[in-house]
Amino acid sequence: MLKRNPRIANLSSGYLFPEISKRRAAYAKAHPEAKIISLGIGNTTEPLTPHIVSALHAEVSRLGTPEGYSGYGDETGLAALRAKIAEVLYENRVSADEVFISDGAKCDIGRLQYLFGPDAKVCVQDPAYPVYVDGSVMAGAAGPAASGASGYAGIVYMPCTAANGFFPDLALVPENSLIYFCSPNNPTGAVATREQLTSLVRVAREKSSIIIFDSAYSAFIRDPALPRSIFEIPGARECSIEVNSFSKPIGFTGVRLGWSIVPRELSFADGTPVAADWTRLMTTIFNGASNIAQQGGLASLDEQGIAETLALTDYYLENARLIRETLSGENFRNAGVSIFGGDNAPYVWARFPGRKSWEIFDLILDSCHVVCTPGAGFGPAGEEFIRFSSFGHRAQVSEACSRLSKLILS
Amino acid sequence: MLKRNPRIANLSSGYLFPEISKRRAAYAKAHPEAKIISLGIGNTTEPLTPHIVSALHAEVSRLGTPEGYSGYGDETGLAALRAKIAEVLYENRVSADEVFISDGAKCDIGRLQYLFGPDAKVCVQDPAYPVYVDGSVMAGAAGPAASGASGYAGIVYMPCTAANGFFPDLALVPENSLIYFCSPNNPTGAVATREQLTSLVRVAREKSSIIIFDSAYSAFIRDPALPRSIFEIPGARECSIEVNSFSKPIGFTGVRLGWSIVPRELSFADGTPVAADWTRLMTTIFNGASNIAQQGGLASLDEQGIAETLALTDYYLENARLIRETLSGENFRNAGVSIFGGDNAPYVWARFPGRKSWEIFDLILDSCHVVCTPGAGFGPAGEEFIRFSSFGHRAQVSEACSRLSKLILS
Repeated sequence: MLKRNPRIANLSSGYLFPEISKRRAAYAKAHPEAKIISLGIGNTTEPLTPHIVSALHAEVSRLGTPEGYSGYGDETGLAALRAKIAEVLYENRVSADEVFISDGAKCDIGRLQYLFGPDAKVCVQDPAYPVYVDGSVMAGAAGPAASGASGYAGIVYMPCTAANGFFPDLALVPENSLIYFCSPNNPTGAVATREQLTSLVRVAREKSSIIIFDSAYSAFIRDPALPRSIFEIPGARECSIEVNSFSKPIGFTGVRLGWSIVPRELSFADGTPVAADWTRLMTTIFNGASNIAQQGGLASLDEQGIAETLALTDYYLENARLIRETLSGENFRNAGVSIFGGDNAPYVWARFPGRKSWEIFDLILDSCHVVCTPGAGFGPAGEEFIRFSSFGHRAQVSEACSRLSKLILS
Repeated sequence: MLKRNPRIANLSSGYLFPEISKRRAAYAKAHPEAKIISLGIGNTTEPLTPHIVSALHAEVSRLGTPEGYSGYGDETGLAALRAKIAEVLYENRVSADEVFISDGAKCDIGRLQYLFGPDAKVCVQDPAYPVYVDGSVMAGAAGPAASGASGYAGIVYMPCTAANGFFPDLALVPENSLIYFCSPNNPTGAVATREQLTSLVRVAREKSSIIIFDSAYSAFIRDPALPRSIFEIPGARECSIEVNSFSKPIGFTGVRLGWSIVPRELSFADGTPVAADWTRLMTTIFNGASNIAQQGGLASLDEQGIAETLALTDYYLENARLIRETLSGENFRNAGVSIFGGDNAPYVWARFPGRKSWEIFDLILDSCHVVCTPGAGFGPAGEEFIRFSSFGHRAQVSEACSRLSKLILS
């Protein structure tokens, strides 16, 4: 029989979130009386807003008529949506033909690693969203998991800790590498400043490297001084790709819609535009985002859509504030817990000094019936940390906070 | 700057359909008066049917309510949809947990090649749907394009010609290979018989190979003796994966929904179940099909949905009949044109002996203002052939047929 692909075999245990689901399910089975609340996965919980719902209905109706029906769409996405993204979200710093519509940022990240192939060196913030690393391992750009918690062979991990304000030492960036960078960060909730991103762009250019900038949480930025896109930084067009998504801003985690930006200045060493290969890849092994979803995304970018997006993200930010407040309580303070993120990001990142993060995960599940995400699942530097997600109904988040406030951390 | 991925560089000219679009656009620009009709790409044209439209509306409405909203779905798809596919389309020959919901067969084919990695040997029917080959080249399982029209280094092309009834000589299948097999076939319109598929399964097992069976056109089969799934063949569960899609049966080319079947008996040489690695890949670099689309797919599998699917596919089959009739006309007969497919498949495959297929493409575009698909785009054995797609409004297809009936083939 065919041999197993060694690259897939190189992946260590399961992808983080299915692993958490499994543990949660096992706990629920053993404790059927427990009313478990999840502050774990970043899964939106609030209904789609009225203007988006209208736009989705309108497209469904249109698809049921001979004159309105459409099959395969424009190969890189609905032209009107590409133009609106460029205009509204990028203030025309990028043009419509540099916007590629997709079914989500996670899928784009997987495809981007496939685009660059197995020979691309990869460096990541540590901790990081697992798909950057897992996708790189699958593409053959990294070897098997090293023993212990030190990550995969061939990946450069750049620690982001409280000590460095969760911004990495850029001296670690190798020449000719892909730099995965996420801001607002998942899981730390840190948002890179204009100065920090300026230095990132400078280093990427000096080291002939490409930044894959994941801005999936940019809609949560409230501080006007913080950049929402790498393309606000001069010089980024020659060294950056950006991925983003409608999942978190408008609750499209299940509806599926995202985009990537590949500027025309970005080239490979031989002069081939990266956008040319990206177009070839996207039109060959992808077949467009759902036309229904694309109309919903388009509606979210007009006046009413923008107002609804703001209200929806405000709702989750208020949840984050409640979580921060809870984690500032006496029981956490006495245990030396320090908290980060959660003001311009939907994630609160809490350090439990001297403890393993899976141990804290189990303690909180067992004592509070609350599911969170163990920091170690995001990389070696995530040990001792727990990520709390602010995606939840207010009543559930409040109840979780009430339980957490009684957690005994002895 | 980073080096270009040599695997992407290995791809020769553009993916077939964007290439055709470009030629069509160039012609339209030069001849603005021409009323061009497409019998080219297999893109559905008829509106979504009422029952499906209802189900889509219902899901959109649900997503707008606190109690009905859902974010990320079950990791391998909506449980009810997986169960219904197993029951209705496979008569429970496969089980719900062997069904993986996706955003379409094309995307699954790309991901499957990624699953098996660069060391898998690949063999394809020739001609074949271009994604099998292009996806293999991107994954590194094939080398650069050979000079001339003889395909890519490392891919085994199994000619399917009129002489062999469009079923390949299975002696060509290498040991330990991935066999891409499409029935009803795109582009030839040939449907493999039960005896043929029985021999395919036997050979795959003898050669320790895995069949990737593309049944995206199975809904067009009208002859009850013809198998609609590889899993109708005894022994297939140990050597086959099937991919299929809602695109053609219910017009979801733009809505995006498909599935794959990976039976639990299918294993790699080391005993790892293929389904385990497929689950890991799908949950890591994919994030589920749109929840709206999934409800539409589910509706298509109840009594009313099945009736609507039948009516919709009948419509396209009648188009195919009209095209066959036209190609049987005196002008074509005199030029020695022979025609295949189009009875249990939406494609009519016509041979123009002694002519290059791109030359016929240009002739038909220029003389009839009809876009078709040149057979050479599907592989070396497609030379001299043209594929006519039956996806079109009846009035347009009739008009195209009327123009074709006047084509001078001198």
